[in-house]
Amino acid sequence: MPIHKARDGDSILPAQDLLAVEEPLQIRVNGRDLSITMRTPGHDGELAAGFLFTEGILKTRADVRGFEYEENSVSLTLAEGLDAGASRNFYTTSSCGVCGKASIDSLHAAGCAMLPHAHIGREIIHSLPEKLRATQSVFEHTGGLHGAALFDTSGNLEMVREDVGRHNAVDKLIGAAFLDGRLPLHNRVLMLSGRASFELVQKAVMAGIPIVAAVGAPSSLAVQTAMRFGMTLLGFVRDGRFNIYSGLSRFQ
Amino acid sequence: MPIHKARDGDSILPAQDLLAVEEPLQIRVNGRDLSITMRTPGHDGELAAGFLFTEGILKTRADVRGFEYEENSVSLTLAEGLDAGASRNFYTTSSCGVCGKASIDSLHAAGCAMLPHAHIGREIIHSLPEKLRATQSVFEHTGGLHGAALFDTSGNLEMVREDVGRHNAVDKLIGAAFLDGRLPLHNRVLMLSGRASFELVQKAVMAGIPIVAAVGAPSSLAVQTAMRFGMTLLGFVRDGRFNIYSGLSRFQ
Repeated sequence: MPIHKARDGDSILPAQDLLAVEEPLQIRVNGRDLSITMRTPGHDGELAAGFLFTEGILKTRADVRGFEYEENSVSLTLAEGLDAGASRNFYTTSSCGVCGKASIDSLHAAGCAMLPHAHIGREIIHSLPEKLRATQSVFEHTGGLHGAALFDTSGNLEMVREDVGRHNAVDKLIGAAFLDGRLPLHNRVLMLSGRASFELVQKAVMAGIPIVAAVGAPSSLAVQTAMRFGMTLLGFVRDGRFNIYSGLSRFQ
Repeated sequence: MPIHKARDGDSILPAQDLLAVEEPLQIRVNGRDLSITMRTPGHDGELAAGFLFTEGILKTRADVRGFEYEENSVSLTLAEGLDAGASRNFYTTSSCGVCGKASIDSLHAAGCAMLPHAHIGREIIHSLPEKLRATQSVFEHTGGLHGAALFDTSGNLEMVREDVGRHNAVDKLIGAAFLDGRLPLHNRVLMLSGRASFELVQKAVMAGIPIVAAVGAPSSLAVQTAMRFGMTLLGFVRDGRFNIYSGLSRFQ
């Protein structure tokens, strides 16, 4: 699109720029509106499946009988007897009130167990930022997309998804694995192009991913959640260094 | 907290690190749970007020009769006859289905008008990133917080808020102005430490802010929304340069 560029000391000049596309997606289940998310179009079925799985609404691939797509809308039909109504937003179900501990406990209540051991070499982690960057085609041009990538513990890239919303990028990636029947994602590393919030760590726990490596910083609740489920959580993974917030033993 | 640091070529060494705090906040209106957001504790009343105002549920300060605070919970009592139930998530109310245009139209339907003219000097914009950085105390230490700052058109800082969620930082800032009866925020610049999504531009439109300057990139829908309401939207505001995506006339 046509824009103008200003640089200190120069005139304002016309230029061309590319934008990351953001559009709403409506997720409908059994004919009812469940959620609207602002996302980058593409992989919409994966996004819906990943969102519903990480919210604890879908358990297995067989729970989904069918998808219908319209522009900016995905409608899922669930298997006989299943309903999405009851379990929406499971953070609210704790009896001890709202707190970080309750949010973590709700994950445990949703069936999340301790993550399995998986050895990882330090040099593998050091190599990930460059591999993620090499795959992020749109980010290079727009600076506007978050990336989420799945690597095996040898550092081989298995999948990458991009979105204006970082939670959407992770939902698309987990949703793809869910639809392929490849969950849980043990022996995998989830690489995030930005920060690691509770929400993103929670999604990784739901998908059984034992190692999360973020280019940015983790939050307090992200670290507490990682500790609770035995996840290796790494932050500031860039420029040949990283911080280990939990799960040091996977390097030993 | 105690962490470990890995640097290519060195041993893994113990170290200390600070984390951005993330905890859930429950927002209740007239005794009913309305929303849970993951936020950085502090300014919780402002956050709740800003969220409810930018969602179109609150219109004026007089709509709020009282606040009650518990740990991680804010309960609002509305003025006689008001109810929050009807207007939740106003993107869904458009009759033309879900699309970017419908999302923008819903803002118009919520009463948003064209933003007023406000002249701004280029040199003012060039000075903002450094001013924002100087105020962002926690970010310096954790790298984990988003900042939102309000400047007048002479470049004077009026307010800054930080949060793990960028939408929360903006809600806190707008909520503070709402509670002080200072809306609409004409002749102001909203500076964002990250990217400009639809959601953030929408909140600025609701608050009447005519100029939004982001350190990162805007999304397509953010630019479309800015154009529709006559907002000056600037991206990549850093290192002595910026891009003008809409509203060039305010520099002339």
